[in-house]
Amino acid sequence: MSRDLSALFDPASIAVVGASVDPAKWGNALAVQALRGAERHRLQLVNRRGGEILGWPTVRSVDDLDGPVDLAVIAVPEAGFEEAVCGVLAKGARAIVAITAGLGEAGAKGRAREAALIARIRAAGAVLVGPNCLGLVDNTTATYLSSNQFVPGGVAVLSQSGNLAIELDRLLSARGLGISRFVSLGNQADVSLVELIEACAADPATAAIAVYVEDFRDGRSFVAAAAAAVAAGTPVVLLAAGASTAAARGAQSHTGSLTSDAVVIAAACAVTGAIQVRTPRELADVLLALKARPTPSGRRVAVLTDGGGHGVIACDVAEAKGLDVPALSVATQARLRDALWSQSQVANPVDLAGAGEMDPDSYARAYAVLQACDEVDAILMTGYFGGYSSGEDGLTGLGPAECAAAKQIAADAAGDKPTYKPTHKPTAVQSIFPDAPACRILADGGVPVFAAIEDAAAALAAVAVPPRTATMRLLPPAAEPVAAADYTAARTAFADAGIHFVAAREVRSAEELAVAADELRPPYVLKALGLLHKSDAGGVVVGIDSGDGLSDAHARLASKLDPPSFSVEEMADLRGGVELIVGARWDPRFGPTVLVGMGGTATEVLHDVQVALAPVDEDEAARMLGRLRTAPLLGEHRGRPAVDVAAAARAVARLSEYAAAHPEIAELEVNPLLITPSGATALDARIVKHR
Amino acid sequence: MSRDLSALFDPASIAVVGASVDPAKWGNALAVQALRGAERHRLQLVNRRGGEILGWPTVRSVDDLDGPVDLAVIAVPEAGFEEAVCGVLAKGARAIVAITAGLGEAGAKGRAREAALIARIRAAGAVLVGPNCLGLVDNTTATYLSSNQFVPGGVAVLSQSGNLAIELDRLLSARGLGISRFVSLGNQADVSLVELIEACAADPATAAIAVYVEDFRDGRSFVAAAAAAVAAGTPVVLLAAGASTAAARGAQSHTGSLTSDAVVIAAACAVTGAIQVRTPRELADVLLALKARPTPSGRRVAVLTDGGGHGVIACDVAEAKGLDVPALSVATQARLRDALWSQSQVANPVDLAGAGEMDPDSYARAYAVLQACDEVDAILMTGYFGGYSSGEDGLTGLGPAECAAAKQIAADAAGDKPTYKPTHKPTAVQSIFPDAPACRILADGGVPVFAAIEDAAAALAAVAVPPRTATMRLLPPAAEPVAAADYTAARTAFADAGIHFVAAREVRSAEELAVAADELRPPYVLKALGLLHKSDAGGVVVGIDSGDGLSDAHARLASKLDPPSFSVEEMADLRGGVELIVGARWDPRFGPTVLVGMGGTATEVLHDVQVALAPVDEDEAARMLGRLRTAPLLGEHRGRPAVDVAAAARAVARLSEYAAAHPEIAELEVNPLLITPSGATALDARIVKHR
Repeated sequence: MSRDLSALFDPASIAVVGASVDPAKWGNALAVQALRGAERHRLQLVNRRGGEILGWPTVRSVDDLDGPVDLAVIAVPEAGFEEAVCGVLAKGARAIVAITAGLGEAGAKGRAREAALIARIRAAGAVLVGPNCLGLVDNTTATYLSSNQFVPGGVAVLSQSGNLAIELDRLLSARGLGISRFVSLGNQADVSLVELIEACAADPATAAIAVYVEDFRDGRSFVAAAAAAVAAGTPVVLLAAGASTAAARGAQSHTGSLTSDAVVIAAACAVTGAIQVRTPRELADVLLALKARPTPSGRRVAVLTDGGGHGVIACDVAEAKGLDVPALSVATQARLRDALWSQSQVANPVDLAGAGEMDPDSYARAYAVLQACDEVDAILMTGYFGGYSSGEDGLTGLGPAECAAAKQIAADAAGDKPTYKPTHKPTAVQSIFPDAPACRILADGGVPVFAAIEDAAAALAAVAVPPRTATMRLLPPAAEPVAAADYTAARTAFADAGIHFVAAREVRSAEELAVAADELRPPYVLKALGLLHKSDAGGVVVGIDSGDGLSDAHARLASKLDPPSFSVEEMADLRGGVELIVGARWDPRFGPTVLVGMGGTATEVLHDVQVALAPVDEDEAARMLGRLRTAPLLGEHRGRPAVDVAAAARAVARLSEYAAAHPEIAELEVNPLLITPSGATALDARIVKHR
Repeated sequence: MSRDLSALFDPASIAVVGASVDPAKWGNALAVQALRGAERHRLQLVNRRGGEILGWPTVRSVDDLDGPVDLAVIAVPEAGFEEAVCGVLAKGARAIVAITAGLGEAGAKGRAREAALIARIRAAGAVLVGPNCLGLVDNTTATYLSSNQFVPGGVAVLSQSGNLAIELDRLLSARGLGISRFVSLGNQADVSLVELIEACAADPATAAIAVYVEDFRDGRSFVAAAAAAVAAGTPVVLLAAGASTAAARGAQSHTGSLTSDAVVIAAACAVTGAIQVRTPRELADVLLALKARPTPSGRRVAVLTDGGGHGVIACDVAEAKGLDVPALSVATQARLRDALWSQSQVANPVDLAGAGEMDPDSYARAYAVLQACDEVDAILMTGYFGGYSSGEDGLTGLGPAECAAAKQIAADAAGDKPTYKPTHKPTAVQSIFPDAPACRILADGGVPVFAAIEDAAAALAAVAVPPRTATMRLLPPAAEPVAAADYTAARTAFADAGIHFVAAREVRSAEELAVAADELRPPYVLKALGLLHKSDAGGVVVGIDSGDGLSDAHARLASKLDPPSFSVEEMADLRGGVELIVGARWDPRFGPTVLVGMGGTATEVLHDVQVALAPVDEDEAARMLGRLRTAPLLGEHRGRPAVDVAAAARAVARLSEYAAAHPEIAELEVNPLLITPSGATALDARIVKHR
């Protein structure tokens, strides 16, 4: 059950502990901001030296506070942190925002102090944001507990970086957007990202949640909370740092946190329906595009322009961002022809070809046709529109007509015009003149206007992503841990889990070898066991035709490698088959993950793999296979029959379930899993337990 | 030899033919602009109705012009175009800028009229820009012959789109850059992009050339001109539209021009050293980064920030843009530690971790250390810097210190400080506050400042590209055209060109089959000839062990496919080998191109190919092979020996030379070319002649 965070976001009484008179100090900036809300909350300032701050009285100690205090923000040096916390708890604080740094992020001793304090705070029924955070703001309740001011609006910003929130505030306000709540996550010693997502999803003033995070902590709970927020109608946009090697280095040292692998984060996003972005500007652009509901129901866009250059560039950019620019139907082209002049191009891109310069209403007429057709999911307008009303155009007198066209377009975009039965397609506009009056009319009418075509296309593409492409299944109860992790144990475990293997016998002597040769059918494969990469070490001999050949190979490998044992196996017929790699890794944040890719050397070179949170069912596994770049090699192609994808999916699902039930296993792998037209057979197996 | 274009860019006398009194008409906007230069040139306006335009007298006909006229800009309706051209030639015009549309781009009749006029113009020793263009501007000679004004600066803009030039003007001026010359290419009926690049490269006022083009016309001459400009020190930045399917559709209809394949354009850029961009904003950002000489000599960057979030994001973005963020050496880290405080992170990203907020000079100290170290090629500063002087910071009083740090950084960037022997590394700065006083100091000091980290990183990456990664060899003289293009003819031709094939015999009867079986060694391959995709049609049987088996296979294929003939071939041993595809295509703009990639089904699925302008020599071919994503499969890997890459490169070079000598061949292909550790053997051959 969620804890009550109301004292954080709408406290009746606030104390600023560590308020300062020195304008170069944080405690001063904090007090200045907090005072802006003094009419709504009872506000008290604590300063060791006493005196007044901006004409407001202070007390010298938390003990002098006039209780009860609902929320205390603490910005004292770390040496005085315990005293401040205990003091405000004694005054009845139900929530603490801890700016103070030098605790959990500063080594083992700090972590111990932090943990002890969190235990006291929880015992008192209170909550704490931080420590090592940059504050908290709720613009709807005048709760201003940060050094900075944020333009009010509908975006909740939950950020592990304060500077990032400052940047986002500027980017959002430049787009006519603003912030409902800002919470700096800090060390997440008590209140976590997960609880804050839940609280903001329940906040009526919050229309969308923007998250910047380096450390997900409990990744599965994050997935559940974000998925619930999205499902309940609050989009979540996620900027998760750490895709790069260098960033991982930075993040580890930055807040003493592990950065989860980018690919696992992407897999988590696929489950949540959160939209993932890479930079602050993308974050702001996606939030802008999200404001223009509905979002595109598919990836087909019509490009509308007046002048070929912008149209051609927009098509290139749209396709590069993963959108499609389909040719329009003959019927729609005919309607566009009726609305435009003879030079206009109507195939898509739709290029007015100078018609706009004669008659700005031609933009609106073409737009109406596109809005009414059902061959595209969104409209991307690009180029000069805005110029005639910008005051910078060489031709004069067209401004009013352009503004009228903008009004018409905004009305059609909003769908309040009966003509053509508008389907309310979302629209993004790129303009050379984004601040021109006609563009302001569009923006005020809910049509987002961008200065750069790549931003407009990227935002449309991001919000057009199917909101949820995967599901997260519950973790199964942990099974009996594996006793051994050697090759034969791994084979046995996976076979018990439902994976089909080639027939094999582990042998430790020439006698056992002879028995195995009798029991199995040639040709044989002989593997030296107890080596990490058997084939790299030359520990595998394939295509052995007879028992004698087997003896020879055995003697050779034994003298070369002296392995503790061997595996004699029937050799699979690789013809007509495809080799996959199937593996699982227990991620420290997100738990079990499953991976599938084209096997063999191609895996290393092409990195053509798909990753999902484990366990996955067979349908999900089949979708993963279908998303491989090399997926066409699984189907019928160039005269080769299709392989048994269902059997492959079954094997992936079974291995993912096995991995999810074995938290003691760090990594497991079947490589290769041979898929033929008639089934899936594992040719190797590996388990690595956590160290 | 280049023609003299001086009358275009610095005419002594100008006539505007088609000047208008109506402010909604182009002829008015043109006259308004031209008049701005009336003090430098003698200016006359021609208007059918006579009267005054902006208080300037007009004449009613070109015949009434007071000659000699150096340059005439013609903006009359197309019906009067011939009359205007002939009239101004009669008045001695040496250059014409033709705005008039409806000629070469409007069908066969228009093309014929255009061609006839160009012949007359050339006979008169004059030159023509356009028709169907939007004018020409030279800001250094007050030659204003367009409807728009452009902020003066060092960039020559050669554009096939007028609106794009308008957008670029705004983007450049927002970055403190401007335009030296603008030429709208129009139909390029006479003066071509190539001549304009040559003229602008020779222009002392032009520091860089920006090109937007949809139709390269003579691609090889473009390559030569751009390469010469770059080699002589004038960077060329190219925005070439048409990467997408939709864009190709648009461009074909737009100016009746063919859009060259994006991959061929990229191959051409690799030869020229031109920097390719995809959008107007990228174009402007790259021009900004180019202004800050020197450009990075490699792809290693140091990231400098104050606050982990921006550092981590910058690392992600830098790596995504193809830059490296290497860990700094122990020595450099120690120097950074001396310059900073204990919390600072110095591995790279270098994170001041709050030091900047205590002491803005710490930015300058860290910057000086990075500027002096030789472990990176560029410095990327990101985040809050600028905030203290922005007036928007919660903490006050740090503005002057930040501005002092900015001055110091700009000085170190310029290399005029002896400390640490600065190596003059280029720097790009991203700031939350790009317009703040400290950022203006950086920009004025030659350090480019960007608002978005992805723009800063992309610009650094673009200018860090090795300027010239390939060379263009001259086309060989055309060889005797091939008489036949069937399989056996292709094999023979390629074998004569130096490609090694498996032994084979073409057979047309059971008797010839028996002879072939005797002459060749089993196992055999039997191919039914005369089918386009032999293996798709089931026309290939491999692994035939004996003459009897060959007869059987022959009988089967003959009854199934009834091909005109067969090829009997010795079967190559594929073990330990890698299959490549090697092909060549004659591009309508850029001439012969050569392609190499991993062969077989992987080609279709992975599109892992490299393309270059043909011919290439063996070194160039080897570099192409090395750039394949799957190149690791050619080297020693996982216990497999390396294949004979030199033999593969030799085959690629030979085929490219053959293709370049055969303009009658549209496409040729060897697929697969089998590369083993001991050589390269072609297993198939194909020639397609131009239709």
